[in-house]
Amino acid sequence: MKALVYRGPGKKQLEDMPKPTLRDATDAVVRVTKTTICGTDLHILKGDVATVTSGRILGHEGIGVIEEVGVAVSRFKKGDRVVISCITACAKCDYCRRGMPSHCEQGGWILGNTIDGTQAEFVRIPFADTSFHLIPENADEDAMVMLSDILPTGYECGVLNGAVKPGDTVAIVGAGPVGLSALLTTQFFAAAKIIVIDLDDNRLAVAKQFGATAVINSTDGKAVETILAMTAGQGVDVAIEAVGVGATFDICQEIVGAGGHIANVGVHGQSVTLQLEKLWSRNITLTTRLVDAVTTPLLLKTVMAGKLRPAQLITHHFSLEEILNAYDTFGNAGREHALKVILNNE
Amino acid sequence: MKALVYRGPGKKQLEDMPKPTLRDATDAVVRVTKTTICGTDLHILKGDVATVTSGRILGHEGIGVIEEVGVAVSRFKKGDRVVISCITACAKCDYCRRGMPSHCEQGGWILGNTIDGTQAEFVRIPFADTSFHLIPENADEDAMVMLSDILPTGYECGVLNGAVKPGDTVAIVGAGPVGLSALLTTQFFAAAKIIVIDLDDNRLAVAKQFGATAVINSTDGKAVETILAMTAGQGVDVAIEAVGVGATFDICQEIVGAGGHIANVGVHGQSVTLQLEKLWSRNITLTTRLVDAVTTPLLLKTVMAGKLRPAQLITHHFSLEEILNAYDTFGNAGREHALKVILNNE
Amino acid sequence: MKALVYRGPGKKQLEDMPKPTLRDATDAVVRVTKTTICGTDLHILKGDVATVTSGRILGHEGIGVIEEVGVAVSRFKKGDRVVISCITACAKCDYCRRGMPSHCEQGGWILGNTIDGTQAEFVRIPFADTSFHLIPENADEDAMVMLSDILPTGYECGVLNGAVKPGDTVAIVGAGPVGLSALLTTQFFAAAKIIVIDLDDNRLAVAKQFGATAVINSTDGKAVETILAMTAGQGVDVAIEAVGVGATFDICQEIVGAGGHIANVGVHGQSVTLQLEKLWSRNITLTTRLVDAVTTPLLLKTVMAGKLRPAQLITHHFSLEEILNAYDTFGNAGREHALKVILNNE
Amino acid sequence: MKALVYRGPGKKQLEDMPKPTLRDATDAVVRVTKTTICGTDLHILKGDVATVTSGRILGHEGIGVIEEVGVAVSRFKKGDRVVISCITACAKCDYCRRGMPSHCEQGGWILGNTIDGTQAEFVRIPFADTSFHLIPENADEDAMVMLSDILPTGYECGVLNGAVKPGDTVAIVGAGPVGLSALLTTQFFAAAKIIVIDLDDNRLAVAKQFGATAVINSTDGKAVETILAMTAGQGVDVAIEAVGVGATFDICQEIVGAGGHIANVGVHGQSVTLQLEKLWSRNITLTTRLVDAVTTPLLLKTVMAGKLRPAQLITHHFSLEEILNAYDTFGNAGREHALKVILNNE
Repeated sequence: MKALVYRGPGKKQLEDMPKPTLRDATDAVVRVTKTTICGTDLHILKGDVATVTSGRILGHEGIGVIEEVGVAVSRFKKGDRVVISCITACAKCDYCRRGMPSHCEQGGWILGNTIDGTQAEFVRIPFADTSFHLIPENADEDAMVMLSDILPTGYECGVLNGAVKPGDTVAIVGAGPVGLSALLTTQFFAAAKIIVIDLDDNRLAVAKQFGATAVINSTDGKAVETILAMTAGQGVDVAIEAVGVGATFDICQEIVGAGGHIANVGVHGQSVTLQLEKLWSRNITLTTRLVDAVTTPLLLKTVMAGKLRPAQLITHHFSLEEILNAYDTFGNAGREHALKVILNNE
Repeated sequence: MKALVYRGPGKKQLEDMPKPTLRDATDAVVRVTKTTICGTDLHILKGDVATVTSGRILGHEGIGVIEEVGVAVSRFKKGDRVVISCITACAKCDYCRRGMPSHCEQGGWILGNTIDGTQAEFVRIPFADTSFHLIPENADEDAMVMLSDILPTGYECGVLNGAVKPGDTVAIVGAGPVGLSALLTTQFFAAAKIIVIDLDDNRLAVAKQFGATAVINSTDGKAVETILAMTAGQGVDVAIEAVGVGATFDICQEIVGAGGHIANVGVHGQSVTLQLEKLWSRNITLTTRLVDAVTTPLLLKTVMAGKLRPAQLITHHFSLEEILNAYDTFGNAGREHALKVILNNE
Repeated sequence: MKALVYRGPGKKQLEDMPKPTLRDATDAVVRVTKTTICGTDLHILKGDVATVTSGRILGHEGIGVIEEVGVAVSRFKKGDRVVISCITACAKCDYCRRGMPSHCEQGGWILGNTIDGTQAEFVRIPFADTSFHLIPENADEDAMVMLSDILPTGYECGVLNGAVKPGDTVAIVGAGPVGLSALLTTQFFAAAKIIVIDLDDNRLAVAKQFGATAVINSTDGKAVETILAMTAGQGVDVAIEAVGVGATFDICQEIVGAGGHIANVGVHGQSVTLQLEKLWSRNITLTTRLVDAVTTPLLLKTVMAGKLRPAQLITHHFSLEEILNAYDTFGNAGREHALKVILNNE
Repeated sequence: MKALVYRGPGKKQLEDMPKPTLRDATDAVVRVTKTTICGTDLHILKGDVATVTSGRILGHEGIGVIEEVGVAVSRFKKGDRVVISCITACAKCDYCRRGMPSHCEQGGWILGNTIDGTQAEFVRIPFADTSFHLIPENADEDAMVMLSDILPTGYECGVLNGAVKPGDTVAIVGAGPVGLSALLTTQFFAAAKIIVIDLDDNRLAVAKQFGATAVINSTDGKAVETILAMTAGQGVDVAIEAVGVGATFDICQEIVGAGGHIANVGVHGQSVTLQLEKLWSRNITLTTRLVDAVTTPLLLKTVMAGKLRPAQLITHHFSLEEILNAYDTFGNAGREHALKVILNNE
């Protein structure tokens, strides 16, 4: 089968790989019908993710049709159309039972990381019973792909951890796919003001369309003072960090109001400076989270109810055979005005 | 001044009454510019509310302009335009500090109950600093009247107590003003399905316009089976009782799913039968609440942000002099297709 | 093997039954070393539990040693000493994932109900991976038996659902094993006053020893007025109903303070009257719950840390062969001063 | 009257100062009968707290007898014995109504900071109605002094913000008075293991007496590895930072387990390095808080119920005239084996 294979830092190839087969009784094999590329895949290609070794098929998102299930799989069967969760959950370990399968003892984020992933014609999924979501009749399949990772990430790490509530003023720093996912799901809670900050005017224009009540291009270094002016010096109720560098984290700690929340969503490669000399007395809550994808059933309901339209996040379509082009487009998101790309394999 | 005065069961008159004056240092006197009539006022007129005695000026909702403040009032001043909260809060007693001013030792629901109310040209408001909300520039004044009572009631007693969350299926039993307020504010939390049940097709049509995803006329006694069929026999996540009689409470206890919530909003005059022989093992939460009106600042923000449009609730306008007509209209809400009526005094 | 078999209302026998064998890949067979009798077993014997049919081996509590596991069991192995949970959890269905395995689609309370139970030399346990808890070295095995059902029931249905918090005044109505379990675990949260109400002076004396700060014998019908007097007329923060009849439920609704909680633990056979005409405005939360046994790992930690001494609940020991005597003792708990009895099979 | 007056960095004197008088209608004047010294007072004396200017009477803790109240004070009267809260609360501003009087617009921490404090024979207290707590009959007055600041600080900033729950493993870094207050109140929630880390063996011995299940002298720089070894490499559920320097904050971020909490209590003078490159995916919650002292009524109940014995924290007694000696003792806490000192003025 065709698959996108990591061959060390900077190297990826569309290769012929053996079709995966069942290994454990709890496995399923899925024919991937749609997949996508994540910012994390770009990190891997830079060589930043030490757990990914040469020869690995990348990808941890997608939907497909079940080809075969192991004898211990009881909730899904051959032919079922499913969303593949980016988080594989054994459902039995302490972390899974605490609602934190991101840290599952045998699962977590393993797809396209420590086991072969979804950017391929087929993929083996461990713990199938608790790592899939059945796709309803009439669902928009492109939209379903957004449920694998990007939407639960924005919602869980940003909106839920940030404890957004009706009437709040929320700032989202970073208008890439994950920041925009936070923007879409922040609107679940009737936030009064949603301010999006980015360096890219195109992304800010998208943010406006997606429901931002104000946008700020922070190129001039004045985002903090602008936001403080917009909030009568009080700062925001919730600051969502959706980039993953020190500069954007700093904006968050400068604009968060007393009693407010900083929800970190960004993947950080370096330490940051935490201004505890100012913040110790400010009654702040700062959270971090690897997505648990435990809210996917809930998000699926809101999609089917028309309360959430994730297809908005999709800017480009390719066939799986064009995946190198797709990586090029996604890797130059600014130039290409790209958010999420869909790779079809049908 | 003119005022609507209760003269015993079944009797009310528009009378000339002395203009109120400051009594305590924490009082304010307000010129009422807009007021409205509440279902509770009708209860009072039936003689159902023992604390209300003959000679009382009715009304616990409205907006106005401050005429005069006591020496201990520091947050408001003459000339301020304010929403009058239906709940008077001393802010100092244990109940107030627990966020439950409905049970304030010196306040709570006293307006138009144990002290003279707002259906008059002027009203004295105790504990002014913590019983008013400043009206922003550009606010729609009719909408502001809905913040005195009806919106916080639907939101606090129904939506918050019912713990509505994204993706939920919510049933609201009763499509009068309070049920519709719950309907409007349920939408703060991206509920997937909102089913409204009533006996009146006109109100159900309004509910549809206000965002109900399904409506059921329960005249045929089949509401329970219809809802169970709509939910694959699982029942609803949240059932909001917004009427106050046994029959509607029964619907709620029959349709609530395992792990679900029943939020009672209705004012009940009689006991109900609780089917604990079925419910003891169903992991149900049942709540009651007299509105605390602690969310009014939050609701005000959502109104100003355009996330909530309470003026939808207003069907009729009268001048204060026409208040007897207004009572007639409101008291025959079905015939008149009435929801909330506004009484202007300007 | 020997087993206690239900033979219709009023009939039970110690019989020779076939030793259970593995049926599904997720099963285990356990040699039961200690079991006990639950108040629910007495209900079954009265014929009150329609799902239990003649020929059923009773019992849903106990500890044992694993004899054999199915091929899909990965977390336990032959020879492991385990606590058997009264709740069987598939860990995969929506209810399990919501933390509510009491309503598990394939499990829940099935042991000694719809499948054979633990009052036998051996028992088959479905979904073994998520229905056992490993017994630590050095654990008191009698104490471990209390973790199957009685302690999580008191803790989850009473204390957690009642939302007991430091400084609270808590009333527990009923000083049987489940009420006493609530009493022991209420002390996790530094309640200031814990009042226990019962008709039996012996049980009240036990309650005193277990940490009640006051006890009331309600035989004279004055429990309500006594408690109101003890709380300056305010009522209690939390009322835990641990009996399951209308009279005890009534005490709870009469003594709960404004803003308080009624946590129903008792198994009710009949409806009760809910005084909504008083309670609608009292900001009350009433909960019901079939134990989910999701807190057993936490309780196990507190037992091992010496914060909870459940062996206090055990008054009598028998061998499994003496189980009819044990039922007699437990069934006449008042006369025998019995709380929990241990049945040894070693 | 006699008072301890700040005269610039490094300078303090016991001086004759004018007795305070009522200034606002909401004020009270209190005869201070007992006060104490806080670590913050030492910070002030180093010149670290810019808001404190020369001539200020220090002190924000204590109890006393009300001498006189303003006309708007309704809940207290001359002769009442009261605990003086370190946080002055207007009860009316948005922060107070959000339960966060630490950031009260007119109050907050002002005593011994921006207005004269309690290390004097008399003190003026603004917003008296909501800044005092009545002392019950039979209360231990020394214990009451601990309710002004140190106990609510340990409880709110450490234990509540850390979300300690039954069965948890909690590490407290720093065994000074605030760390020990966290230690005492952590026990409200039946934590299974409480590990206290400090550099001073005497304080660690005290921690053992106060309920620590393990203590670690971190002088050898091995605290982190010791704690990881004690927790099977998982880390702790809650890490409470009770010192306020980078080194102790680092211990906290190294030992917190996935899904755990870091509750910062320490007053930090400098930024710290936050290892987001490790923590971003660890599902951590980090909190900061200036004490709000909103739990003082609850703590008072637990003290009166014997669940909390704060007099344990008191090691030395002086008369107010000996306050310079008391500062010397408290300022050399290690040498003097001092925790809290009581200054009597009776």
